Amino acid sequence: LVRIIDQRLLPGEFLERDLRTLDDMVDAIRTLAVRGAPAIGVAAAMGLASLAAGLSRSGTGDFRERVEACGRALRGARPTAVNLAWAVDRVLAAGADQEDPIAVAHAMRREADAIREEDRDMCRRIGEFGASLLRDGMTVLTHCNTGALATAGIGTALGAIYVAHERGLRIRVLASETRPLLQGSRLTAWELCHAGIEVSVVADGAVASMMQSGSVDCCIVGADRITRRGDVANKIGTLSHAVVAGAYGVPFYVAAPTSTVDAETVSGLDVVIEERSPGEILLIAGHTGEQQGIMANNPAFDITPAELVSAIITDSGIYKAPYDLGAWKAAERSTDPSTPDL
Amino acid sequence: LVRIIDQRLLPGEFLERDLRTLDDMVDAIRTLAVRGAPAIGVAAAMGLASLAAGLSRSGTGDFRERVEACGRALRGARPTAVNLAWAVDRVLAAGADQEDPIAVAHAMRREADAIREEDRDMCRRIGEFGASLLRDGMTVLTHCNTGALATAGIGTALGAIYVAHERGLRIRVLASETRPLLQGSRLTAWELCHAGIEVSVVADGAVASMMQSGSVDCCIVGADRITRRGDVANKIGTLSHAVVAGAYGVPFYVAAPTSTVDAETVSGLDVVIEERSPGEILLIAGHTGEQQGIMANNPAFDITPAELVSAIITDSGIYKAPYDLGAWKAAERSTDPSTPDL
Repeated sequence: LVRIIDQRLLPGEFLERDLRTLDDMVDAIRTLAVRGAPAIGVAAAMGLASLAAGLSRSGTGDFRERVEACGRALRGARPTAVNLAWAVDRVLAAGADQEDPIAVAHAMRREADAIREEDRDMCRRIGEFGASLLRDGMTVLTHCNTGALATAGIGTALGAIYVAHERGLRIRVLASETRPLLQGSRLTAWELCHAGIEVSVVADGAVASMMQSGSVDCCIVGADRITRRGDVANKIGTLSHAVVAGAYGVPFYVAAPTSTVDAETVSGLDVVIEERSPGEILLIAGHTGEQQGIMANNPAFDITPAELVSAIITDSGIYKAPYDLGAWKAAERSTDPSTPDL
Repeated sequence: LVRIIDQRLLPGEFLERDLRTLDDMVDAIRTLAVRGAPAIGVAAAMGLASLAAGLSRSGTGDFRERVEACGRALRGARPTAVNLAWAVDRVLAAGADQEDPIAVAHAMRREADAIREEDRDMCRRIGEFGASLLRDGMTVLTHCNTGALATAGIGTALGAIYVAHERGLRIRVLASETRPLLQGSRLTAWELCHAGIEVSVVADGAVASMMQSGSVDCCIVGADRITRRGDVANKIGTLSHAVVAGAYGVPFYVAAPTSTVDAETVSGLDVVIEERSPGEILLIAGHTGEQQGIMANNPAFDITPAELVSAIITDSGIYKAPYDLGAWKAAERSTDPSTPDL
């Protein structure tokens, strides 16, 4: 059993939902009831461990095959976020050296718990590194939701803002609403408001005007996947903000845990971009959809090239171009967040 | 009496509404029941002439003062579009050299009719000049709505697409949805679909990704005001598309009648930008608004600097930078749309 906050209902309703079956878990990930790359990874890890425990108790002979089938189904629920595959593979590997299903399931549960704890710790370190880039009185633009709802901790990009707020800095957040699913408006604004941090929502298309007028001091966004050369797959609309930030000289930071780095993939051109239903675009406008012959393009992510990223804030430090994230991923973690190398 | 299509209800419902009083007319303009810079100008001209006719029949002594008060109220309904003030002033001036209220009201009605007819003709010429920039098979991005709904004719930016379609060119239109009021998704997609032109809606934030992948051949947008140096005030979100188009080498065209040029204003920095209600941003996301302490910035327009505009398509020809639109406005109209000077 995995308990999640159903993020589809926020801000109107705060509902915790119990996921009991594989179908429940795949459906929750696919429909964005649980979302945010780190949160998806943690939920899939916990879910897989929970399913393995159930299968181990039923004592069937094909335990290993059935657990692996669960892992494949969870991995396939969303294609772009790399944490999902990473977390599933890590939990599967945890029990690989044991035979007894009960022991395997125990090992998988310990690994899932470790992933959750590590995510919480990583958020804190990302937040501390990120906060070192913020100054009192800054207005910070963010996109989508990268906070407590998106992780097992205080968040990635929002983690930096939470830590800065804890340290007494006055930070004003501009949350771009993030069409089509409005995670910025629904989730980020809701989260920050509850934390007592000043937040104002802007249409995605209004961000350029605010950067032009000098109203944005820096941008911090999250990432669903970072390639070896530093290209960043993140929620659709990120690239637009990055291009405009570059044009107006606004620093553009990406905050993400090391598990977001896909060292196998060099360029963002090679990342599979999930295309979602046209209905997410059309229904809000009152269209009954395809029956009127009106189409929609609805990519869920875009790729921001490394050249537009001022720095990548991770749990092991702050990195600037040229990125060599294969090496970075292998490197030991810095233990002193007070001296980022930027 | 002025009859309009209530654009707030599209695409769900096609309703024609009769505007009978000054309050009706101001309200229709302010709430965007009638919208699109040329359509607002025509509606205000027709409305003012209609109000003057009513006042002339009631035979009160303060006819002139009351008509001018109507003009001021209409002018003030929306501050950014220059056609509104231009049309009102032109109708007011039409009766200025006569004493008899009935004769004044007749002159104002003739002037309002002329504005409507001229708008129709201007749309056609803009469409013909604009179509000369399009090629068979192109994918054209547009923003907001600049078509038949926004003018008394075939539109400005969409006019170019309609004329190209008439000429047998296959044009595919990408309509950015245009948050917060979704004019691209609700109105442009509806209009083009009814005209048999292929249209696909994209979130405003997804446009950058489509330009990055080479899926957009050019952009054509309208304008609510163009300053003497060629800065363009248009629907919020336009600047973002222009910056990204510049970054990816996609031509960015602005199509507008000469009445959109504000020769008194040199720079876009001097244009008053209408700020609309936070509710337009927040309600769609399920917020109950300020009671939760969540704010929103909601500028209705942004300013695209002349440097980002590849060409301005008008009813008198196609102009490229450096723009001197004071001189352009004074110049005679070209009579041969087949030889644009681009």
